[in-house]
Amino acid sequence: MELAMINDDVFPILKIDPAYLDRGIYFGDGVYEVLRSYDGQIFALDEHLERFDRSLREIWIDNIDIKEVRRKVLETYQKSGFGNARMYFHITRGSEPRNHLPGKNLNPNFFLTVNELLDKPGEKEHGIKVCTYPDLRWKRCDIKSLNLLPNVMAKMVAEKKGCYEAILVNDAGEITEGSGSAFFAVDAKQKALITRPLGSDILPSITRSVVVKIAKNCGLGIIEKNLTPAQAAQCEELIMAVTTKDIVPIVQFDGQTIGTGTCGKHTRALIEEFAKLARHR
Amino acid sequence: MELAMINDDVFPILKIDPAYLDRGIYFGDGVYEVLRSYDGQIFALDEHLERFDRSLREIWIDNIDIKEVRRKVLETYQKSGFGNARMYFHITRGSEPRNHLPGKNLNPNFFLTVNELLDKPGEKEHGIKVCTYPDLRWKRCDIKSLNLLPNVMAKMVAEKKGCYEAILVNDAGEITEGSGSAFFAVDAKQKALITRPLGSDILPSITRSVVVKIAKNCGLGIIEKNLTPAQAAQCEELIMAVTTKDIVPIVQFDGQTIGTGTCGKHTRALIEEFAKLARHR
Repeated sequence: MELAMINDDVFPILKIDPAYLDRGIYFGDGVYEVLRSYDGQIFALDEHLERFDRSLREIWIDNIDIKEVRRKVLETYQKSGFGNARMYFHITRGSEPRNHLPGKNLNPNFFLTVNELLDKPGEKEHGIKVCTYPDLRWKRCDIKSLNLLPNVMAKMVAEKKGCYEAILVNDAGEITEGSGSAFFAVDAKQKALITRPLGSDILPSITRSVVVKIAKNCGLGIIEKNLTPAQAAQCEELIMAVTTKDIVPIVQFDGQTIGTGTCGKHTRALIEEFAKLARHR
Repeated sequence: MELAMINDDVFPILKIDPAYLDRGIYFGDGVYEVLRSYDGQIFALDEHLERFDRSLREIWIDNIDIKEVRRKVLETYQKSGFGNARMYFHITRGSEPRNHLPGKNLNPNFFLTVNELLDKPGEKEHGIKVCTYPDLRWKRCDIKSLNLLPNVMAKMVAEKKGCYEAILVNDAGEITEGSGSAFFAVDAKQKALITRPLGSDILPSITRSVVVKIAKNCGLGIIEKNLTPAQAAQCEELIMAVTTKDIVPIVQFDGQTIGTGTCGKHTRALIEEFAKLARHR
């Protein structure tokens, strides 16, 4: 008889929950988004849904109505009652017995969670420490897929080194992005934010795009170019940008203090500008 | 309240099955093996368990007793009653609310399935068609991880082209391996099997190692070197090697007929030698 064992219990395969046959777990065959709300309002929902739609299409999950995803997100968010929330959702290609080649007429699985988001007091002032780690990821990091083991491994190494985030470095010796965040450097002389150009090796980060938009209000231009870790460590300010925390100063990079070791003036200006946009102040 | 939505149903997060919080689905944070049995005997169980143990350690899942895994595999296989079976098992780092950084004291999840394996009659004689596809995978393909989206995508493209398997080609224009199999070429003049040297860019395939061992019984030497698709297409015979099917001739490569378009004599000799070993004839 066809059997499954879950931990130490044996069942006929037909009796197990479809969650165990999800192509998400077998292959990471799905894509996801993370959203946050500020004071009762989900930030950049349209942009996240647009990126989600693109991710789905890039891996040929073609039968999703993105308006339905929007409805589910809004409905669950409203039910949660949280003002400041973190929302995660993914769609996988569906559940079926394991086979690399997906079956025809599979029903995709939708999964979403809402948690309260408590911003860490002082984090934007004290900043975070980061370390570099090799970028081991696949060649389509522009797709926000469930294949995140290299990101997890980078984060585990960072934690061991007392750092919050790992900044990934490719075979050419250039910074790509953080293991779970976008990366910016401030060139104070040129009054510019430096960031890697978009491409298949980094995620088209929504927070990155917002930072690029608000930079001019802070008197900063944008220079899209690749940096080595040595070049980054010499910049006056470094920034991590991520949906759940928006803009956070990086105050230590591979053990080297950046700027004054606290939030720099350009980073502070960006944080304030971002808050105006996100919190409608 | 913290909520989860599964498809279209909303639940308190605390009430959902831990299967939905598996780091396997969130991150592909786990490793797996596929085994097969021939006539009541699991083939190369020790080798598979040894590789599984290595995969676990490479991603720092350190608290697994591999003897327990062996017991579970044997116990479930015996309960199934199948002579020829395909067994799949994985271990993930555990279930918890989503966070890249794993919690302390997580309990890993074990999951296993046993299915009857019906060999396709004629497949070893008629062979299979393959096409090339870019190798988009991460830089640690020596770890048998659950991050398999690029493999799935390659297989989907192969199917569209009427092929059974995709042969992956890296940025240097060299064949690495199949999307779910090892790859060999026969150089008839040199009486040798050509295969890519082991490294972080291919899986240390158990079937590959068995083929390498039995080659000398078939009068074939081993040449470990990298081939381009053009070089492979000029070889007299091409071979796909994979646990569930052991050795299968490749008779068409990117639309070009290989050899006589059926199983070549060296491939047939390897198939027979493999069967002696696997079926104790």
